[in-house]
Amino acid sequence: MDDLSEFVDQVPLLDHHCHFLIDGKVPNRDDRLAQVSTEADKDYPLADTKNRLAYHGFLALAKEFALDANNPLAAMNDPGYATYNHRIFGHFHFKELLIDTGFVPDDPILDLDQTAELVGIPVKAIYRLETHAEDFMLEHDNFAAWWQAFSNDVKQAKAHGFVGFKSIAAYRVGLHLEPVNVIEAAAGFDTWKHSGEKRLTSKPLIDYMLYHVAPFIIAQDMPLQFHVGYGDADTDMYLGNPLLMRDYLKAFTKKGLKVVLLHCYPYHREAGYLASVFPNLYFDISLLDNLGPSGASRVFNEAVELAPYTRILFASDASTYPEMYGLAARQFKQALVAHFNQLPFVDLAQKKAWINAICWQTSAKLYHQERELRV
Amino acid sequence: MDDLSEFVDQVPLLDHHCHFLIDGKVPNRDDRLAQVSTEADKDYPLADTKNRLAYHGFLALAKEFALDANNPLAAMNDPGYATYNHRIFGHFHFKELLIDTGFVPDDPILDLDQTAELVGIPVKAIYRLETHAEDFMLEHDNFAAWWQAFSNDVKQAKAHGFVGFKSIAAYRVGLHLEPVNVIEAAAGFDTWKHSGEKRLTSKPLIDYMLYHVAPFIIAQDMPLQFHVGYGDADTDMYLGNPLLMRDYLKAFTKKGLKVVLLHCYPYHREAGYLASVFPNLYFDISLLDNLGPSGASRVFNEAVELAPYTRILFASDASTYPEMYGLAARQFKQALVAHFNQLPFVDLAQKKAWINAICWQTSAKLYHQERELRV
Amino acid sequence: MDDLSEFVDQVPLLDHHCHFLIDGKVPNRDDRLAQVSTEADKDYPLADTKNRLAYHGFLALAKEFALDANNPLAAMNDPGYATYNHRIFGHFHFKELLIDTGFVPDDPILDLDQTAELVGIPVKAIYRLETHAEDFMLEHDNFAAWWQAFSNDVKQAKAHGFVGFKSIAAYRVGLHLEPVNVIEAAAGFDTWKHSGEKRLTSKPLIDYMLYHVAPFIIAQDMPLQFHVGYGDADTDMYLGNPLLMRDYLKAFTKKGLKVVLLHCYPYHREAGYLASVFPNLYFDISLLDNLGPSGASRVFNEAVELAPYTRILFASDASTYPEMYGLAARQFKQALVAHFNQLPFVDLAQKKAWINAICWQTSAKLYHQERELRV
Repeated sequence: MDDLSEFVDQVPLLDHHCHFLIDGKVPNRDDRLAQVSTEADKDYPLADTKNRLAYHGFLALAKEFALDANNPLAAMNDPGYATYNHRIFGHFHFKELLIDTGFVPDDPILDLDQTAELVGIPVKAIYRLETHAEDFMLEHDNFAAWWQAFSNDVKQAKAHGFVGFKSIAAYRVGLHLEPVNVIEAAAGFDTWKHSGEKRLTSKPLIDYMLYHVAPFIIAQDMPLQFHVGYGDADTDMYLGNPLLMRDYLKAFTKKGLKVVLLHCYPYHREAGYLASVFPNLYFDISLLDNLGPSGASRVFNEAVELAPYTRILFASDASTYPEMYGLAARQFKQALVAHFNQLPFVDLAQKKAWINAICWQTSAKLYHQERELRV
Repeated sequence: MDDLSEFVDQVPLLDHHCHFLIDGKVPNRDDRLAQVSTEADKDYPLADTKNRLAYHGFLALAKEFALDANNPLAAMNDPGYATYNHRIFGHFHFKELLIDTGFVPDDPILDLDQTAELVGIPVKAIYRLETHAEDFMLEHDNFAAWWQAFSNDVKQAKAHGFVGFKSIAAYRVGLHLEPVNVIEAAAGFDTWKHSGEKRLTSKPLIDYMLYHVAPFIIAQDMPLQFHVGYGDADTDMYLGNPLLMRDYLKAFTKKGLKVVLLHCYPYHREAGYLASVFPNLYFDISLLDNLGPSGASRVFNEAVELAPYTRILFASDASTYPEMYGLAARQFKQALVAHFNQLPFVDLAQKKAWINAICWQTSAKLYHQERELRV
Repeated sequence: MDDLSEFVDQVPLLDHHCHFLIDGKVPNRDDRLAQVSTEADKDYPLADTKNRLAYHGFLALAKEFALDANNPLAAMNDPGYATYNHRIFGHFHFKELLIDTGFVPDDPILDLDQTAELVGIPVKAIYRLETHAEDFMLEHDNFAAWWQAFSNDVKQAKAHGFVGFKSIAAYRVGLHLEPVNVIEAAAGFDTWKHSGEKRLTSKPLIDYMLYHVAPFIIAQDMPLQFHVGYGDADTDMYLGNPLLMRDYLKAFTKKGLKVVLLHCYPYHREAGYLASVFPNLYFDISLLDNLGPSGASRVFNEAVELAPYTRILFASDASTYPEMYGLAARQFKQALVAHFNQLPFVDLAQKKAWINAICWQTSAKLYHQERELRV
């Protein structure tokens, strides 16, 4: 059987779900690398985090691409840090990053143009619904005014340069999304507004928002990402099962809403099943590929037992340092080689077509980035 | 270690759960093959379905056994179509098909004798409870009359030539079966009767039916199959977890009800656990073996982590064309070879005994088909 | 890559969760071995149990270490039985057993000193909360008196020689533990007391107990084990998902409660995730390693996809005969070799450190058994 290693090494990557990088001059690079190698909070013992494989996978990359081989964890100044980033993003053939700007690490590089220069490839933004909803709440006193302002902003997202949407409903209320009426939603707004908390946690309001922004998202032909499954201790993973989204998927995917389930672990088989029976449904195994590196190949194999190869996407969910993006790419590409090298029934051309679809082509179409991905 | 490939190649198969084949003269064989290679509805893009491995596994079989090597997807006329079927069913040593007649594809061959002639082996029928319950509803105006007619029919199923029962409660109300009283059941019937819908979706009525037909099924010493887990977008797979059946299993398996869990994926480990602690509980990984062919070996391995080898059965859940039955056989037999070749602690004779049990012997006893399976 | 086989063969084992052995003179050793090779009740057919791999794994050990090679399943008299035990526990380098005394097989050896002599290594006791709560119920007429007596006993557990606690809430009410007030708890006690049943099954009372003993357990710096997932037909495994424990874990692990999730299968990925985000959370794959021997390596690999290597522990959950402890050790050690031999990014010293942590070091610290484990 032909070996696909060389082909996969060279295949371009569109990372359709990731976050901000941080300043290279931050002094405690070792601890920051360790911290971002886990979903645990800061009060979780760093010693245990350093006994996870992800941290060691980051270290291996840091050594491999180090500017100073004797000091791979040193802080980096500006031209050097860009060189370092170019090495890693270039080595794995990253071609574009789509950044969910709703999560902000400490010491972030917030400017997308600056990020693009740093990593050497185009960078676009994803519109996180809850974050913007929260910002508009601060400016409006009642549900109607808030909804008007927020939904107007959603309708103009494409015009404002965003390439997709994301919801973190799983973190706030779980994935059992239900239709609610405007009275319940307005009551949810009032409770929230008077709570003094910026954080949106009202189930009726989040349900209302997701059911009512769907048409505006369809109208702009943009995809809507959902956090699913694996996340930090703040998510109730019991409620993060994508099978709970069935009513929502039935309501909107046939109408043209393109839904992308992010991460999915340990519900990646469930996600693959959903992708095999719902139109317009996509998913990835991001975050597991880099934070659970010993499982990337196994999880990929399980994820595609039922899913079409045109429905699973590469993503890293990485932030902070290029090592996190790089480890996702390394483990994911290795999983691709292992899977496709032993796949029966299809020829080499078909395998290559599917690998292209997974790594960049499907995302390029979905997020309308064909121009940026001319490869 | 001895290689079991040759033994497994020759081992007979009793397919205890499958459906009707269709007419060979249907012109659009390629699209029909693609359509049946997925659980997706007809409005799901066929292009995505063709990017699943199952379709390519069907194509590989079509080419391998083609009457006309230059045109493997051509429609087939009568003597040729039988030859083609005989080639595939014969190659994999199918010895009998048990057909759930409750699902009817377009252009079906409904006559079981005709089917037996077409495939070259005996064919028997499984009694799908909900379908018959629905037919009797059309003929009766009240719960008592309906139940009398329906339960009489259930009691005579064996006399009418059926070899087992099946419930698709998972498709209608999920698997959390509960005892209900006759008043709730009768109310459920009235609502159903007046709804104008033939489709039975009343939870109290389905619960009542399953609790009250159990003794009649025990009396006839016939097994009761349940759809579990993987199915089309019409099933709420969240409610298809067989662990939800615990109360029902506790109520009846010790009394002698033989229950067979069908498909089970992605709950096949849960099914294997149930088979390891409940008497009279059997299961299979049908539908995954052909529609998720890259996972068949992995899923089989997981399914038998806890289950006795005398509780898991071969089945295809196939319909329409012989390729679907054949791919189930190919992937399942490959999974058997991989599993048993590397199994420690037991000798070759024990491995062969277990393979026989899985492929035909346990089903032959369960469905009283020893005579048909004289091998 | 270096082969770790020899290192793992020699690595010491602290079995932090197991049960009583039985008398060697019991005549029906074959049936007792078969019976304990499954979680099924006694009315489950022994013939099916003998068609599970676990039984054959026990037989293989019985033959390998037999006193009388021609009669490996013979009853054994006293000095011989100790020799036999020493052979097996010694071969796998067991160094200590922590016995949950709440489960008592027929014909048990209840004396821990006698057990220590029999197996040739130290033996300590785990305090099963529900068992003791039940004993105190018999002696007290009202909630206040019962709680005073029981909680005093809990507070003195360390002084009484216990090295840890265990809860079987999963067997009684499931793992969705919730805070309850004292009025509900007292009402639960009254209902229980007047029921005439010794068995504690009141959800409010078990919830109350677990929320209110936590501080006493923290004060003694002892771990609290929970039965999770896989067990006999008496457990509702649907409610045995450790993700349901999130509120309890959030309430206590940051305050210093050391929680150990036992067994976990088929929720071992969920357990590994919890260990990766909650401080003070440990887990094992006991019971699967010996009762599902063909899956031990796969399940271990899945369990450590996210978990720190300093959070997963060896355990057997064995009882009755040394074969059950031995098979857990054999399968677990084989899983370690397979996993660490192919682990990228880390050197041999790091791998050995992690294997030591898993097999004995983390448990030695957790249960304060460093002195007994001087290795």
